[in-house]
Amino acid sequence: MGHPELRAAAEDIAFVFDTLGVGDALTRLAPYRDFDTATFVQVVDEAARFSREVLAPLNAAGDREGCTFHDGQVRTPAGFADAYGRYRDAGWPSLPCEPSLGGQGLPLAVQIAVQELTAGANLAWTMYPGILHGAYECIHRFGSEALRDAWLGPLVSGEWLATMCLTEPGAGSDLGQIRTRAEWVDASDATARVTGEKIFISGGDQDLTPNILHLVLARTPDASAGSGGLSLFLVPKVLANGERNAVYCTGIEHKMGIRGSATCSMAFEGATGYLVGAPHRGLEAMFAMMNSARLHVGASAVGLAQSACELATQHAHTRVQSRVPGTQAGTPIAGHPAVWRLLEGQRVAVEGARLLLYRAALAIDEGHHADTPDARDRAEALAALLTPIVKAMLTAQAFQGASDALQVFGGYGYVEETGISQFVRDARIPMIYEGTNEIQAIDLLMRKIVRDEGAALGQWLTWVRARVNEAKALDALHGFADALTCLDDWMALTPSLVALARTSPRAALCVAGDVMQAVHGLSMAGLWAHAAHAVHSVHGVQAMQGDGAGSGKLRAARHWLRYELPQTRRAITIVAAQINDPETAQ
Amino acid sequence: MGHPELRAAAEDIAFVFDTLGVGDALTRLAPYRDFDTATFVQVVDEAARFSREVLAPLNAAGDREGCTFHDGQVRTPAGFADAYGRYRDAGWPSLPCEPSLGGQGLPLAVQIAVQELTAGANLAWTMYPGILHGAYECIHRFGSEALRDAWLGPLVSGEWLATMCLTEPGAGSDLGQIRTRAEWVDASDATARVTGEKIFISGGDQDLTPNILHLVLARTPDASAGSGGLSLFLVPKVLANGERNAVYCTGIEHKMGIRGSATCSMAFEGATGYLVGAPHRGLEAMFAMMNSARLHVGASAVGLAQSACELATQHAHTRVQSRVPGTQAGTPIAGHPAVWRLLEGQRVAVEGARLLLYRAALAIDEGHHADTPDARDRAEALAALLTPIVKAMLTAQAFQGASDALQVFGGYGYVEETGISQFVRDARIPMIYEGTNEIQAIDLLMRKIVRDEGAALGQWLTWVRARVNEAKALDALHGFADALTCLDDWMALTPSLVALARTSPRAALCVAGDVMQAVHGLSMAGLWAHAAHAVHSVHGVQAMQGDGAGSGKLRAARHWLRYELPQTRRAITIVAAQINDPETAQ
Repeated sequence: MGHPELRAAAEDIAFVFDTLGVGDALTRLAPYRDFDTATFVQVVDEAARFSREVLAPLNAAGDREGCTFHDGQVRTPAGFADAYGRYRDAGWPSLPCEPSLGGQGLPLAVQIAVQELTAGANLAWTMYPGILHGAYECIHRFGSEALRDAWLGPLVSGEWLATMCLTEPGAGSDLGQIRTRAEWVDASDATARVTGEKIFISGGDQDLTPNILHLVLARTPDASAGSGGLSLFLVPKVLANGERNAVYCTGIEHKMGIRGSATCSMAFEGATGYLVGAPHRGLEAMFAMMNSARLHVGASAVGLAQSACELATQHAHTRVQSRVPGTQAGTPIAGHPAVWRLLEGQRVAVEGARLLLYRAALAIDEGHHADTPDARDRAEALAALLTPIVKAMLTAQAFQGASDALQVFGGYGYVEETGISQFVRDARIPMIYEGTNEIQAIDLLMRKIVRDEGAALGQWLTWVRARVNEAKALDALHGFADALTCLDDWMALTPSLVALARTSPRAALCVAGDVMQAVHGLSMAGLWAHAAHAVHSVHGVQAMQGDGAGSGKLRAARHWLRYELPQTRRAITIVAAQINDPETAQ
Repeated sequence: MGHPELRAAAEDIAFVFDTLGVGDALTRLAPYRDFDTATFVQVVDEAARFSREVLAPLNAAGDREGCTFHDGQVRTPAGFADAYGRYRDAGWPSLPCEPSLGGQGLPLAVQIAVQELTAGANLAWTMYPGILHGAYECIHRFGSEALRDAWLGPLVSGEWLATMCLTEPGAGSDLGQIRTRAEWVDASDATARVTGEKIFISGGDQDLTPNILHLVLARTPDASAGSGGLSLFLVPKVLANGERNAVYCTGIEHKMGIRGSATCSMAFEGATGYLVGAPHRGLEAMFAMMNSARLHVGASAVGLAQSACELATQHAHTRVQSRVPGTQAGTPIAGHPAVWRLLEGQRVAVEGARLLLYRAALAIDEGHHADTPDARDRAEALAALLTPIVKAMLTAQAFQGASDALQVFGGYGYVEETGISQFVRDARIPMIYEGTNEIQAIDLLMRKIVRDEGAALGQWLTWVRARVNEAKALDALHGFADALTCLDDWMALTPSLVALARTSPRAALCVAGDVMQAVHGLSMAGLWAHAAHAVHSVHGVQAMQGDGAGSGKLRAARHWLRYELPQTRRAITIVAAQINDPETAQ
């Protein structure tokens, strides 16, 4: 099987930046005024080329070979280290970093596109630099000046890589159970000895860089129990004086997928660590980058889904099987309605996912850099609302999409050599890490909807409503009328949902996943309406009918309305039943 | 991780045979009059014990070790051959075979239960004897007397195993492309030389039995093109005179799952083959056992889903993470509404799947053995209608269920040593083999609904309607009113669907999967109503309220109504939209 070319991906990202106006919105923000949309698109094209040429060819081989662990040292699959060297030398690590620190100062939205493309080519490889951006942000925003001066430069240049050390055997979703302890060596310069065991640490050891900066959640002796008492420490593998620090990889996991990514167990044996941010405020520093980290996971999922779809599409256009109704003998299986439905469903899911992903990324950029505090607050609230949806829904769709892609291959799909099953196996992990999808649903319901009594959601749905109304006026897209009914029904029941969550949280939590699906579906209605309207504005009425420019996007919008919108109604029905009769919920 | 105990599975199968009356219905059929329900249940318990004690402990090890292929010989994982010997010695292969041939003469429904349990313990192992029953039926029903006398005995005793050799590199879903040829050696005794390549042959070679009977679709020189020209041949690995026949395994596949099952490429090099049935009627002989073969696949899927659910439930009752709302610290994660939803959703899916599976199995038994031709015809039509639904929906649910089970394990689920990921990988293949799920949907729509203009479907839905009406009258199950609305809407649109399939087959085929979901959902409404009513009849009104006997089944029915029925409405909406506006479908 060939590798994904990622050309369609880059083209569709360009659509989002260009026709949909994400690029223009970014260049209105102060730090990005010297850029233009063409530059963003150029970076995307370059990332696609790098991913296609350097990373994709290592993907299947990396899965077969996996990582090995001998004498305390991880060895990554053949070619991974070399590819990382090329990535570093080409300057990709510094892309979103501050120009004052040697970075290129590009928006998060562009960084997210790079993540989508590299992950689409090779998720296992992308795991290594995947945490770089978060670590940079964390140290940059919360580290002391001394800490920043000492450790940030090599992260910006990509000379070193970083990890996040949160999970322990007894502390997965529940960080409050963390037992790793930090004892002050010198409280005045915030240096401590860190001791404990961490598990599931991606890139905890590797052979790509000479040093690794571990960001470790640990508990100081004076800390309270629970997650509120945790502090964050920077624990380098190699100290500034060149000595090896007392942090060791003790083993790697044998996993269902992303086998080229080393998932390490780590032992901290009195390792020297430097406090990042205030004591006992470790979670705050960690969570400050959570929106961006979760968007990176969503971006990875979109990349995987896009590549799986591309490979299935290639196969379906070459494989000939049963006679396609109404065609000549010898027509490939892509012509079968059942195969068409699988492929078109994947394409629509991926293109729709991008509408949401880049809207959320833009909101994070706007949250940091919009001109007024009010605009920043609104953007931040939107980012907070959309982030769990991006993380959970896009990763669930990617797993489903990869499985659908495998289905297109039939029996060949189940054979490892064909390569598509790797996408299914790889796509299974994003539903779990960075907070399981169930935790995302709880976050959306309790923290993003209930806490402000639906204010941020209402603001977003007002925008959605305006877009849907706009698109409803377009010929040939009358399906948006149903979306409007769903929207009205949902808005009417939101206050009752908030009330239920307060009086009977268990009943509300039972439908947290359905709330997620409903809000996702309504969001997509607005985003598809926006896309349809933008295409109509640019390409005119021809796009609505023929096969001309933009017609693919309108076909996708129609497909979504016909085949996916009913899923939203289903979710609303379930939530409404729970509100009306919470007693018999469980 | 422990192995599944399969006790809940056996208990729930007993519920279906006992409370739901499948056992009584079977003993009303002539060949089963000497049995009673207690005997069926005893056989099920014995199968559960065998699966638990002998097969389950080999499951994870078999996955790790896989099969090997050296010097033309397949070696199965350690313990597989010994387990097969115990299976054979215990008489399991002869279970559904004619007593006159040394069989035990038990119904297919009981054989299906055995399949569910062995597959739930170890699907890879179950693949080896999995085709035995089909091969027996095929030779028994279509083979000449000489053929039956020569080859059937060792299949009944399980001394030998069998394969189905259909697929070739150019002939997967499209059997008409088969190129393997058969040249007559002696047309008078129907002996031929078979030459060609077959792929994806489960158990094409193995080290469990000294001989293997291959049932091979091939084309005689006088055959027309397409699937109509195919003939079926019995090609033994070892001939009656003890000579090795010219059929060889040339390699095995490296697969995503069922790694302990040898998936072989086979070369027939002028191998001696004996015609089974009439020349050019090979497909007929092959398809005569398709209903039963597809039910076996559905049964395997139920077994996998049940075992995955059992393991996830065990984990959820021991793993402690974040504080469960409204409980003491230290309450396991099973108490979290999100985890409850995952687990209960799986339980309801599995128990619902059994209602459908054993109804279909009973229909096949009745189709063969009911007293009157009319009763046999009606049962056969029902079996034909339900079989593609069993195959497609139960396998899709099992993959989803296994993935949900993995989700309950969080990050641990992604680590191979935990064992749950094997269930996800194993559960992916039943969606493909014995006709992909897309082919099942086409079969349901075109052959089972359109061909008789909805007659068989109407008859079944009349039964469903009666059951739903009955259950609607029960307190605390008012959700059945919605099911009735769905049923009426669907029955009203069936004629238009038939018309659409005739005037615009492509538009109809685009929603074949949704038709499948709708008919499945409506069927489940009737089956859950039937189960609820049966529980109410046996256990009385207490079951409706408390925690007493039968209350679990009623909770499951309520769960289905609240959380799953809206899926049926969604499917109906999509089909209706396609009927109303077929032009913009693609």
